[in-house]
Amino acid sequence: MWGKNGGPTCSRTPQADASDGVSHLATLMVKCPDRKGVIAALAQLLYGLGCNILASDQFTAEEGVYFQRIRFDLTDMVVGTANKAVLERAIAEVADRFGMEWRLFYDGAVKRVAILVSRLDHCLYDILIRHRAGELRCEIPIIISNHPDLEGIAASFGVPFKHLPVVPGSGPEGKRAQEAQIEALLEELGIDLIVLARYMQIFSEEFCSRHAMHTINIHHSFLPAFEGAKPYHRAYERGVKVIGATAHYATSELDAGPIIEQDVTRISHRDSVQDMIRKGRDLERLVLARALRSVLSDCVMVNGNRTVVFEI
Amino acid sequence: MWGKNGGPTCSRTPQADASDGVSHLATLMVKCPDRKGVIAALAQLLYGLGCNILASDQFTAEEGVYFQRIRFDLTDMVVGTANKAVLERAIAEVADRFGMEWRLFYDGAVKRVAILVSRLDHCLYDILIRHRAGELRCEIPIIISNHPDLEGIAASFGVPFKHLPVVPGSGPEGKRAQEAQIEALLEELGIDLIVLARYMQIFSEEFCSRHAMHTINIHHSFLPAFEGAKPYHRAYERGVKVIGATAHYATSELDAGPIIEQDVTRISHRDSVQDMIRKGRDLERLVLARALRSVLSDCVMVNGNRTVVFEI
Amino acid sequence: MWGKNGGPTCSRTPQADASDGVSHLATLMVKCPDRKGVIAALAQLLYGLGCNILASDQFTAEEGVYFQRIRFDLTDMVVGTANKAVLERAIAEVADRFGMEWRLFYDGAVKRVAILVSRLDHCLYDILIRHRAGELRCEIPIIISNHPDLEGIAASFGVPFKHLPVVPGSGPEGKRAQEAQIEALLEELGIDLIVLARYMQIFSEEFCSRHAMHTINIHHSFLPAFEGAKPYHRAYERGVKVIGATAHYATSELDAGPIIEQDVTRISHRDSVQDMIRKGRDLERLVLARALRSVLSDCVMVNGNRTVVFEI
Amino acid sequence: MWGKNGGPTCSRTPQADASDGVSHLATLMVKCPDRKGVIAALAQLLYGLGCNILASDQFTAEEGVYFQRIRFDLTDMVVGTANKAVLERAIAEVADRFGMEWRLFYDGAVKRVAILVSRLDHCLYDILIRHRAGELRCEIPIIISNHPDLEGIAASFGVPFKHLPVVPGSGPEGKRAQEAQIEALLEELGIDLIVLARYMQIFSEEFCSRHAMHTINIHHSFLPAFEGAKPYHRAYERGVKVIGATAHYATSELDAGPIIEQDVTRISHRDSVQDMIRKGRDLERLVLARALRSVLSDCVMVNGNRTVVFEI
Repeated sequence: MWGKNGGPTCSRTPQADASDGVSHLATLMVKCPDRKGVIAALAQLLYGLGCNILASDQFTAEEGVYFQRIRFDLTDMVVGTANKAVLERAIAEVADRFGMEWRLFYDGAVKRVAILVSRLDHCLYDILIRHRAGELRCEIPIIISNHPDLEGIAASFGVPFKHLPVVPGSGPEGKRAQEAQIEALLEELGIDLIVLARYMQIFSEEFCSRHAMHTINIHHSFLPAFEGAKPYHRAYERGVKVIGATAHYATSELDAGPIIEQDVTRISHRDSVQDMIRKGRDLERLVLARALRSVLSDCVMVNGNRTVVFEI
Repeated sequence: MWGKNGGPTCSRTPQADASDGVSHLATLMVKCPDRKGVIAALAQLLYGLGCNILASDQFTAEEGVYFQRIRFDLTDMVVGTANKAVLERAIAEVADRFGMEWRLFYDGAVKRVAILVSRLDHCLYDILIRHRAGELRCEIPIIISNHPDLEGIAASFGVPFKHLPVVPGSGPEGKRAQEAQIEALLEELGIDLIVLARYMQIFSEEFCSRHAMHTINIHHSFLPAFEGAKPYHRAYERGVKVIGATAHYATSELDAGPIIEQDVTRISHRDSVQDMIRKGRDLERLVLARALRSVLSDCVMVNGNRTVVFEI
Repeated sequence: MWGKNGGPTCSRTPQADASDGVSHLATLMVKCPDRKGVIAALAQLLYGLGCNILASDQFTAEEGVYFQRIRFDLTDMVVGTANKAVLERAIAEVADRFGMEWRLFYDGAVKRVAILVSRLDHCLYDILIRHRAGELRCEIPIIISNHPDLEGIAASFGVPFKHLPVVPGSGPEGKRAQEAQIEALLEELGIDLIVLARYMQIFSEEFCSRHAMHTINIHHSFLPAFEGAKPYHRAYERGVKVIGATAHYATSELDAGPIIEQDVTRISHRDSVQDMIRKGRDLERLVLARALRSVLSDCVMVNGNRTVVFEI
Repeated sequence: MWGKNGGPTCSRTPQADASDGVSHLATLMVKCPDRKGVIAALAQLLYGLGCNILASDQFTAEEGVYFQRIRFDLTDMVVGTANKAVLERAIAEVADRFGMEWRLFYDGAVKRVAILVSRLDHCLYDILIRHRAGELRCEIPIIISNHPDLEGIAASFGVPFKHLPVVPGSGPEGKRAQEAQIEALLEELGIDLIVLARYMQIFSEEFCSRHAMHTINIHHSFLPAFEGAKPYHRAYERGVKVIGATAHYATSELDAGPIIEQDVTRISHRDSVQDMIRKGRDLERLVLARALRSVLSDCVMVNGNRTVVFEI
């Protein structure tokens, strides 16, 4: 997720020019060894440049790692036309001093999200409705699916839909071919974030590694319980009294990536597997939506295999 | 949990004489293959004897097993002094016809509960406070512990306390000796139900088998996640966003018995293992109390490794 | 909601012929003074006719009113072609004996639901998606709105949409005229249930009285707090830490009808009114969907100004 | 809650000397008109004095009021023996510049809490158990009650108990006399915070005004619903599907003070008023405990009639 110490902001996020007048807000995320003076240095830096801090949240993990998210307004930045370069140079300088990794996101540069689906429509509908309602600050230039079923929904929201099936019987080669098609499309469209909205294919380790920490998956159990296939069936067998859903970063190890958000709902002995699937739909879409909103608001940072999720 | 088809009510529950005038309520629990006419037969039986059905709940499991709980008032039973024997004979007759297992509990016969604890006091306090407040219909003739620490709490509620330690270094023999002491005490006191209120010893398979389905344990995770030791530490490592607690029947397989009740609470990256332990205390005592109340109200029936928990 | 004592089933629900082979399930709802023998009489009646009771739930209110819902299978009813008439006559006979009000719903006779909306789309979308997913057993022959905005959504789900505006400046007369148009449409389409899915007009007392107990409204607060207009604004002003939503039967007194379902979500000082509105959308659609599902499954009975909501 | 602009820290909180070596942590709470540079000024100030910021949280209310809580370590403060005075002078200087109200709490100065109770014991037990478990950083030098019933519980935790009844039939005079006795005791014991743990007397307006913002009450409903007496009875009458509890600062207007914490629990038609009272007990003690913990951790600030509750 993070460039090298002192590196520039992620090249995947093209930055709109603040001179377009649309938005002059930005979010700075930093991660560094815990040391005295970090807060003061950053606050002083921004204040000195005429930026107004709107919100700041921080967290020091037990391992001695410091995380901070600063949201600020650069409307009154005093440095003239080249202000962004100045800002970034100033941050780089402080980052260097404290051994920081950092990322800077300008609100003008909206993230571009690809949604991957298969046949289930509830998460897709939910994301599209929230996006239309303005809840999710992103562009959705493409919906990709290994099945054609949901094309109509994409169309009703005016979002392009691409059917990229795995050719039946084509084995690992066929799967790799499909992944290559997907990656080409992601590259072509400048995608920043991949959302697996109940996408029913398991990606290869290579794909996962290349897209770790910008791929979000929704799994229909409260992980680490019921990793893998058919979690509701296994929850039924085990006789649990709550079922859950988990949104996490997809990594090369199945259902084992850093968890972003989880929630549960109560069930009883009366609930069949079908009832769990129905109740689970509500849970899956809510949990995925919350995780997505946090990520799109630049509130999520990764700490090993755990996440720091600042409030929006 | 169940006697043989047509068998009498559990001998562990001595039945008070309804002639004492205290209570004339009873609960009948039946389990049989799903067949037409069961409800009608039981309703007719009770009506014919002058009993008034106060509540009835039923459930047919997918496997074709029928469960029913009937709560009724026998105040107006028409059959004279020998009425209980008549009632039980009538039930046995119907049970025989439908291949029922059944248990009958008279309210006058309050269950006798042994609480087993180690050093943590929150679950013990909670049970004792609820018991004093009248939330739990049972007698608590003994608190047993492998540590002396909680004797003062037992004393402040006027409950006998027995310290039965495992002799350090005594190996499996020592453990078995302690279990034998516990079992002798349970037998002597006519205990119907064992509550492991954060008892930190693992019982032998033999002990568990002998006491399965009348031993309730509280485990500090949402099972099946984090079975075994140190669940909060492992929840922390995994980076989950909810922690849970599970009350279940203890069986010879660790943390794998039928689940009676579960609940969870949200945590965030800010919560250390210590915070989880603190938040978990509230969860553990609530979940254990709910499960215990359900069991004491004769609302819980076992269906393989799952439970049917009727509303009280 | 209930016909007279011993009266026939609601004439608003045309009953499909069981001979169509589609479904042979039915639900009987009864309400009567609490008396011994009711359960036995109904169980015996159904058993005697060859019906198989699948589920039965009952409740005796403190005021001495008895409620029961019985779900049964009439596939094996022994009485030949005229079986429904026989069944209904038998029920009427028992009902007469116990002073019962009763309603009988055959699964073949699906309820017809009109959805009324204004400009907000989240509840409408939610109902339509659930309906398409098979979660709601009903037909939706019409969406009625006082604004044209949501016509496109109706179209994308293939549901007829009727724009019936209140003519601006037409005063109470204009409003009454619009209500008359709505009622004519409801009558014409044989509507059984009206769902106010964030419909922003307040109906006249006359309209409400005529449609009480078959009109469900969703109110965006945990009633009785914040009845009437702008509940989120008032919740913000009061500084509450939870917001809620309430689904209730609309009656002539605003937001005071029997509550069917409620739920809440946590908020903090960080949540603006706009945040509450956003979070509230999730709550409103969930609460309305649960209430609607309960009503459509014939699980809701009215007890004065309170409801009995049996589990589905 | 707040002294005058630039005023000293609350005189009710005697400050232990940091030289005792126990704790060198402190919490600074500030409130001022929203202006650029506040964060930088405070961060710089603390950094300059050698203090290490451990956590910082802030909030800008829509009305343009800025709130911040800073937790810091003064172990390495560079200014020698008179360091606290230097620190406080430095803060006062910055506060003056920005028009800040501020309070500074040293961890060495533990708050002194008086618990007021009547006959119900569940909240009292809960606070005492949590206090013993180390969850609540405070001293509890006194439990005051208008009834003698709970003296035994106080004794079992070793806390002094004072029975201060309102003399029956003594009218408003008698009540005022009792309040005077209470206030004398609070004064004598140097009490910082009053907790009304189901204290069933309503204090006079004068008492409330004098103790506003350092008196916490637990009310057994989700305010603003069911203010005043018998909320569970009224909740039952209204037929709600959730019941709640609210912890708030007591003010001279009954149940209308700033809300600190709320939560709810689900109920159904089966729950009688007695069931609500039982379920409510769990809710009341949890909500009160969470509010108390927040206040004792210096996380709660008042914004008009609303609260800002920072995470601990």
